[in-house]
Amino acid sequence: MKISVFSVGKSSIHFVEEAEAYYTRKIRYFTKFEMLKQETKKSVGTDITSVQKAEMDLILRSSAQADRLILLDERGEHLSSKQLATYIAQLQNESVRHSMWVIGGAYGFHSDLYAHSQKTISLSRLTFSHQLVRIIVLEQLYRAFTILHNHPYHHE
Amino acid sequence: MKISVFSVGKSSIHFVEEAEAYYTRKIRYFTKFEMLKQETKKSVGTDITSVQKAEMDLILRSSAQADRLILLDERGEHLSSKQLATYIAQLQNESVRHSMWVIGGAYGFHSDLYAHSQKTISLSRLTFSHQLVRIIVLEQLYRAFTILHNHPYHHE
Repeated sequence: MKISVFSVGKSSIHFVEEAEAYYTRKIRYFTKFEMLKQETKKSVGTDITSVQKAEMDLILRSSAQADRLILLDERGEHLSSKQLATYIAQLQNESVRHSMWVIGGAYGFHSDLYAHSQKTISLSRLTFSHQLVRIIVLEQLYRAFTILHNHPYHHE
Repeated sequence: MKISVFSVGKSSIHFVEEAEAYYTRKIRYFTKFEMLKQETKKSVGTDITSVQKAEMDLILRSSAQADRLILLDERGEHLSSKQLATYIAQLQNESVRHSMWVIGGAYGFHSDLYAHSQKTISLSRLTFSHQLVRIIVLEQLYRAFTILHNHPYHHE
């Protein structure tokens, strides 16, 4: 199964980019993986609904090829790392070819987007910056594969 | 209030050190802050209880000057970022001079340590690497102060 992590918003703090490269290498040891970052056009406007709508269009366009759309959002299910690994194994068992995991923008997702997704996962009750969410998601995907492959995770 | 984050284990991936420096600068805008990292002696042995006991001794020695010991542990309370900010405000109101926030080693805390602490906080149902926990804790402390000071957090 190919996994894409899609992030709305391109700008990165340097350490975030370094972390992304670090975990991307590690995840690719186990599966086909890509990190995608895209921004909406500047002409979208600034009111929350317009931004959310433009981001939703961008997400739906970018995920057209994926057969599972997974939203990372505070409103989602709180899973343990083992449960996340089990969910990935389940996708593999269902012969899902391409799952896309989406990190929203600063305003959160448009309410219509949930109907297009198959799963919504919350990382924590805490609110993290969108940059930090990228690192957390990648580390959790890597951890999930180490769990599924019974690979020692060296708590680096 | 001075805040110390104490981490058992010194080794760092480069991006983690960079993230620590990044958030340390930001937290110091609001309060006295230090990040402490220490390891137990190599002679401790390898069985879990010996390691936990040596780490507990290290933590208790290092926190002797602190008037609040806060453990970051999967067994703790799940707070929202706002609740974490409220807890910090509460410590300030109680005139706490020095709080120490402790990230344990790979085996978790010795069970006796909980009796010495005033609070145990869980970051998520997910298990994070100890390196990643450092970044998350620092980002959350920074976020808490931006909440308390009504400072815009630019979702960097």
